Amino acid sequence: MTNLTHLPRSFRRVTIDSIIPDIDGGRFAAKRLVDQPVTISADILCDGHDELACHLHVRPAGSDEWTTIPMARDGNDRWSADFTPGRLGAWEYTVSGRVDHFGTWLRDLLLRDEAGDDLTAEFAEGRRLIEQVAATADDASAAELRQHARKLKGRGGVNAAQQSRLASLMRALAASDHTAWLDVPRRLWVDRERAAWSSWYEAFPRSWGEPNQHGSLRDLAGQLNYIASMGFNVLYLPPIHPIGTSFRKGKNNSLNATADDVGSPWGIGSPEGGHTAIHPDLGTLADFEALRQEAARQGLELALDLALQCSPDHPWVTEHPEWFRHRVDGSIRYAENPPKKYQDIYPLNFESESWQTLWEEVFRVLQFWIARGVRIFRVDNPHTKPFEFWEWLIGRIHAQHPDVIFLAEAFTRPKTMYRLAKLGFSQSYTYFTWRTEKQELADYLQEVTTPPRSDYFRPNFFTNTPDILHASLQEGGRPMFMVRLALAALSVGNWGIYGPAMELQAATPFKAGSEEYLDSEKYELKNWDRDRPDTLAPFISDLNQIRETEPAFRRQRPPLIQPTNDDHLLAWCRYDPASESRILIVVNLQPGDRRRGLVTLDRGQLGLRDDEGIEAHHLLDGNGVRIDGTSIEVACTPARPVVVLRLVKAPVQLSFLEISRD
Amino acid sequence: MTNLTHLPRSFRRVTIDSIIPDIDGGRFAAKRLVDQPVTISADILCDGHDELACHLHVRPAGSDEWTTIPMARDGNDRWSADFTPGRLGAWEYTVSGRVDHFGTWLRDLLLRDEAGDDLTAEFAEGRRLIEQVAATADDASAAELRQHARKLKGRGGVNAAQQSRLASLMRALAASDHTAWLDVPRRLWVDRERAAWSSWYEAFPRSWGEPNQHGSLRDLAGQLNYIASMGFNVLYLPPIHPIGTSFRKGKNNSLNATADDVGSPWGIGSPEGGHTAIHPDLGTLADFEALRQEAARQGLELALDLALQCSPDHPWVTEHPEWFRHRVDGSIRYAENPPKKYQDIYPLNFESESWQTLWEEVFRVLQFWIARGVRIFRVDNPHTKPFEFWEWLIGRIHAQHPDVIFLAEAFTRPKTMYRLAKLGFSQSYTYFTWRTEKQELADYLQEVTTPPRSDYFRPNFFTNTPDILHASLQEGGRPMFMVRLALAALSVGNWGIYGPAMELQAATPFKAGSEEYLDSEKYELKNWDRDRPDTLAPFISDLNQIRETEPAFRRQRPPLIQPTNDDHLLAWCRYDPASESRILIVVNLQPGDRRRGLVTLDRGQLGLRDDEGIEAHHLLDGNGVRIDGTSIEVACTPARPVVVLRLVKAPVQLSFLEISRD
Repeated sequence: MTNLTHLPRSFRRVTIDSIIPDIDGGRFAAKRLVDQPVTISADILCDGHDELACHLHVRPAGSDEWTTIPMARDGNDRWSADFTPGRLGAWEYTVSGRVDHFGTWLRDLLLRDEAGDDLTAEFAEGRRLIEQVAATADDASAAELRQHARKLKGRGGVNAAQQSRLASLMRALAASDHTAWLDVPRRLWVDRERAAWSSWYEAFPRSWGEPNQHGSLRDLAGQLNYIASMGFNVLYLPPIHPIGTSFRKGKNNSLNATADDVGSPWGIGSPEGGHTAIHPDLGTLADFEALRQEAARQGLELALDLALQCSPDHPWVTEHPEWFRHRVDGSIRYAENPPKKYQDIYPLNFESESWQTLWEEVFRVLQFWIARGVRIFRVDNPHTKPFEFWEWLIGRIHAQHPDVIFLAEAFTRPKTMYRLAKLGFSQSYTYFTWRTEKQELADYLQEVTTPPRSDYFRPNFFTNTPDILHASLQEGGRPMFMVRLALAALSVGNWGIYGPAMELQAATPFKAGSEEYLDSEKYELKNWDRDRPDTLAPFISDLNQIRETEPAFRRQRPPLIQPTNDDHLLAWCRYDPASESRILIVVNLQPGDRRRGLVTLDRGQLGLRDDEGIEAHHLLDGNGVRIDGTSIEVACTPARPVVVLRLVKAPVQLSFLEISRD
Repeated sequence: MTNLTHLPRSFRRVTIDSIIPDIDGGRFAAKRLVDQPVTISADILCDGHDELACHLHVRPAGSDEWTTIPMARDGNDRWSADFTPGRLGAWEYTVSGRVDHFGTWLRDLLLRDEAGDDLTAEFAEGRRLIEQVAATADDASAAELRQHARKLKGRGGVNAAQQSRLASLMRALAASDHTAWLDVPRRLWVDRERAAWSSWYEAFPRSWGEPNQHGSLRDLAGQLNYIASMGFNVLYLPPIHPIGTSFRKGKNNSLNATADDVGSPWGIGSPEGGHTAIHPDLGTLADFEALRQEAARQGLELALDLALQCSPDHPWVTEHPEWFRHRVDGSIRYAENPPKKYQDIYPLNFESESWQTLWEEVFRVLQFWIARGVRIFRVDNPHTKPFEFWEWLIGRIHAQHPDVIFLAEAFTRPKTMYRLAKLGFSQSYTYFTWRTEKQELADYLQEVTTPPRSDYFRPNFFTNTPDILHASLQEGGRPMFMVRLALAALSVGNWGIYGPAMELQAATPFKAGSEEYLDSEKYELKNWDRDRPDTLAPFISDLNQIRETEPAFRRQRPPLIQPTNDDHLLAWCRYDPASESRILIVVNLQPGDRRRGLVTLDRGQLGLRDDEGIEAHHLLDGNGVRIDGTSIEVACTPARPVVVLRLVKAPVQLSFLEISRD
C-alpha cells in the first residue's frame, strides 16, 4: 500500500511563495545598492489557524553562514523583513517558516483566560511543550526553561506564560525539522550607487583640440572643468582606438573619404592596434592615465565604449580570421542589413566554431581596461551578440570586480532590452527620446521605474546621442532643449547628454525626416563654441545641482505622476519619506507657448495629511505660484518652460505665495 | 584561462520564457478540459535579426514521445500554437526555438533581389547551407536537397529558393544541436467538462421521507425528478454516515439533545461505522447504488461529502487513538476555536507521528466510494488539513481516476483558497455570497474568472448553503432570491444551491445578525412543501435551460462586464465567438424597486462591428427593450428583476424592439 500511494517521507505544513523581489524564480538577480535597505517579502501560508514563526536569511554568495532576521506579518498572509547589504557583489536570500506551537498555545491560553475557562489542562500542555524543547536544549537553557515551566500554574500562570524571555527561548530552541524553506534561494546583485544614480556626458576627445586640429586625450584633460562644472559625474568617450582606413566613411557618412577624413571611431582597428590600443592622434596609455586621474580629481569617472566589431584593418582580421563570417569564395562578410551594406565594418561571428577563444579575447579586452582603472563600460549594440555571452562576460567580470558598471546601448525590441538588463547590464538606454506626448511619457515613466521592472532594469535617459537628434529638438528650439533636459535629469536615476551638441542646441538634421546630425561628429572634427552666450550649460548645472543636493533624487523611488488640467503640462513628484524631501517638477511639452495650469497633488502619495499646509520654493528661476489646498497653479513661459518646486509643510494653508529662487 | 573564465561547453542563441499558461514555473498544473483547444504562448528571443523556427511539444505525462506543432509569431516576440488534448489526465508541454538559418538566408535573398543586387555569392551561400543539411540527411532527402541546390543560380534561382518543399525539408532536417528548450516542461491537468461546467443541488436525504419520518436514500431516489426537472446535473449529499451520540447537538445547535434529535451529519461515526458506512436510517450500500443509478438515469451525478473529522463515537477513536490529539491527562482533544468549544467533534491530528497511516486511511475511504461509482467529492474544510496532504491525496486518486472531481469548501483567507486550487482541487467555493454591491461583484467576477487565476481556480458560486443564509436573502424577499440565482447561474461555469431552502425562499435567520438558518436542517428533519405555488423551481429550471442550450455558457470565457448608467444595475455578457452566441444578463441589485437603465455594449469585446445592427430576444419573461446603436434600455421590476437577452446581428439598426420570449 505504501508503495502504491507513494507516501512522502515527511511533509511541511508551511508553504512559502510569491517572494519579492524575484526575477523569474531566482533565474536572475534583483539589483540593489550597497548600504541601502532591502525589503524582502513573501506569502507564507499554513493550514488551520496556528501562529507562524518566519525568518529571512541572507548571505553574501559563497558564504556558508546565513544571517537570520525575523519577519513581521503585513496582513493577508504576507510577511516581510529588511536588511542592508554592506558590501558589493552577489548576495543570496531565502525565507523560512514554521508553525509556532508555543506561540499558538500562548495565544489560545490568553483567549481562554479572557473567557474565564479553567486553565489547568492548558498549563499542563504548556509545560509539556516547554519540556519537549528543554529535552534537546543545552543544560543552561534547559534549566532556565524548566524554571519557567514550573511557574505555569495557578494565579500567576498566565503572567508567567507571557514572559518575553520564555517566548524568545522557545522560539530560538524550537525543533527545526518541520521548518519549510523557499524552493530555491533568490539572488541579489549589489552595486555601488553610481549604477543607479549617474549623470553622463558624452564627448569626442578629438574635437577638444585647437580649431581644425585633431584633439587628444590631453586636450580634453585640460578642459574637464567645463564638464565638471555642469555637475556631471560620468565622462563617456566613444571608442578611442585606432580607426581603419579600408572603406573609411567620409563626412556625413559618405562612401568616399578623402585623405583628411578622420573616420568613425566605431570603425575600430588598424595596423596600429585594435580594442586594447589607443588612436595615435589621441595619445598614449600614459595620456589616458593622466586624463583618468584628472577626471577623478574633478569628480568625473571615465566610461569607455565596448563596441565588438572591427574595421577590415583590425589585427583580429588577420590573426583570427576564424572569428568572422566567410563567403564561399573565402572573403570576409562585411556588416549588412539587406539591402543596406556597411563595407567598413566586419561583425564578429559568435556562431564561429572558435567562439570560445573569441569570448576569452573580449574578456581580456575588458580586463585590460579594468587594469587601467576603468570601471564603467558603455556597450555598443549588445543585442546583436548572444545573450549567453553577456551573461557569462558580465558574470566573470563582476566576480572579480563587482564595482564595474555596464550600460547597454540596445535600441531594439522591448523584450530584448529587458532581457539584457536581466542578464546583468547595470543600466540601459531607453525609448525616452521618442516619448514626447504627456500620456506616453507618463506611461513610459511608470513602465521603467516601477517593480518588478525596476528590480532589474535601470533606465538611463539620454536626451540625444551622436545617432539621435529627435524631431522635437530639431523643431522645438531652446525651450524644448530645456524641457528634454529637465525630463531626463529629474525623472530617473541615470541620465546623460551628448555634448557640446546638447548644451549648444545643435538642431540641424542631415536631411528632412532624418535623426542624424548634419555634419555629424561621428565622421569629422567639430569646433564647438562652448562660450556661446545662449549655452544651456548653466541650466544643466542647475539640474545636476538639484539632483545632487535634494535627497528625493538619490533614492530609488519612482517618479509620481501628478494630475494637471492641461494636456501639455506634465507634472511629477520625487519624494523621499526619510528626509521628507518632496520635489514637484512641471514641464510644458509645448514649450514655445505660455501656459498656466493647475497641478492637483496626491497628498496620500506624498505623505501629506489633508490638514497640512504646503509651501513651495522655486529651485529654478520661476514665476508666481498659487497654492490652494492641494492645487498648485504654475506658469510656464518659453524662457521658463520648466518649474521645479521644493514642497515643504507649512504651519497654515497659504492661499498665495510667490517665493523667489532659494 | 579557460578555467578562470568558466566558459560553458556550448550555448544557445535563442531564449524562451514567459510561457502561458504557467502556474508558478511549472510547480503546479494549469487546468483545461478534454477535447477543447488549448493555446500555449511564449516569449522567444534571439540576438540580432535572424529568423526563428519555434515549436510547441505536447504529450500525455509518462509518454516518451512529444507531438510537435509549429508555433506562429504573434508580434512583440510572442509565439503561440494550439493543441487539443484528447484524453483526461496529466499532460506536459514545452517549447523549443532555434535560429532558422535557411529562412534568414531566404528572407535576405529576396531583399537583395528586390534591391537589384548581384546574387551570385548569395546563391553559393544557399547551396552551402543546403549541402550542410544534406550531409547528415538520409539518402533520399539528401538527393532531393541537392537537386534543389543545383537550381540556385541564375534567373530561376530566386524562384527555386522559394519552393515550399525546399523550406520544409530544410526545416525538418536542420541540425537541432543548437535548439533551445524551455527550462522545464509545464504541466496541464485535463478534466472532463463537469469540472468546469456544473449545476449543483444540495439535499439532505433524511428530509425527503414521509412527514416527521427519517427519510432514506430510497425516498430521495423516488423524488429525483423534482431535482432533475430543475436542470441540475450534480446532486450533492451531506455526509451519509452514521452520526455520533456523544455530545450530539440538538435542534438549533443546542448543547442538550433529546433522544429524538437526529444530530448533525458532520458528526461522523458511531459504533455502526465511520467514513465508509451508511447511516442505518438512510439505508444500505445497495440503496446507495440504487440512488446512484436512478440519479444517473435522470442526468444527475452524485457528489459525496468528504469531512475529515470524527464524533467521539467514531471507530477510529478507539482503533487509531494515535490519529488524535491528547491532553496531558490522556483524554482526546475536541475541536476548539478558543474560546469556542465543539465537544461533539474530534479533529484528526495531521501532526501525529502516525500521519502516514492516517493519510493511507483517507485514501482508502476515497477508493471505497470510487469503487461504488462516486466521481465527485465535496471536501469539507480542506484548509484545516495540510496542503501537502491534499496534493498527495488528489494526485494519487487522479493518477488512477482522472475523472474524479474535488470541490474545495474552504471559506478562509484568499491566498489559502487559491493555494488549495493550485494543489489540485477542481472547483472551489468562493466569497460570492458576500459580494452584493455592483462594483464589488464586478471586481470579484474579474478576479476569479480571468487568467492567470482562472488557469487553476474554478469558482463554484453557491447562492446559499446550510451554513450561509446571507443577509441579502433574509431581507430581499423573492426578487432578491431571483437575482442571486441568476448571478450564480449565469456568470460562472459552476454554480449550486442548497435546496429546497433556496427555491422555497427560506429566509429566517437563527437570530438577528446571524447567517445560520432558524431551525436549521443541519440539526433536524425538515418537511419542505415543495409544491408551494411561489416556488422558484420554474425560474431555476429556466436558468439551467439557458446554461444548457446557449453555447456561450459552456465555454470557459470570462463574463464581460458591460457599463450601465445605474449604480444598482449590473450587466454582463457571455460570448462564444465560435458559435456567435452572445447573451446579455442584467440584474437589479435593489430588486424590490423598479428600475429602467441603459446598458452600453462594448462592441469590440463582443465581436460586433460598429455598422452591425443588433436584435435582442428575451430568454426569460421580459419587458420592452429599446436598442439604439450600442445602447440597450432595459426595465427591471420586482416581478422581473432579471433580464436575459440573446443578442443577434440584425441587418439594420433597430431603434425600438419589443420581442416576447423565444
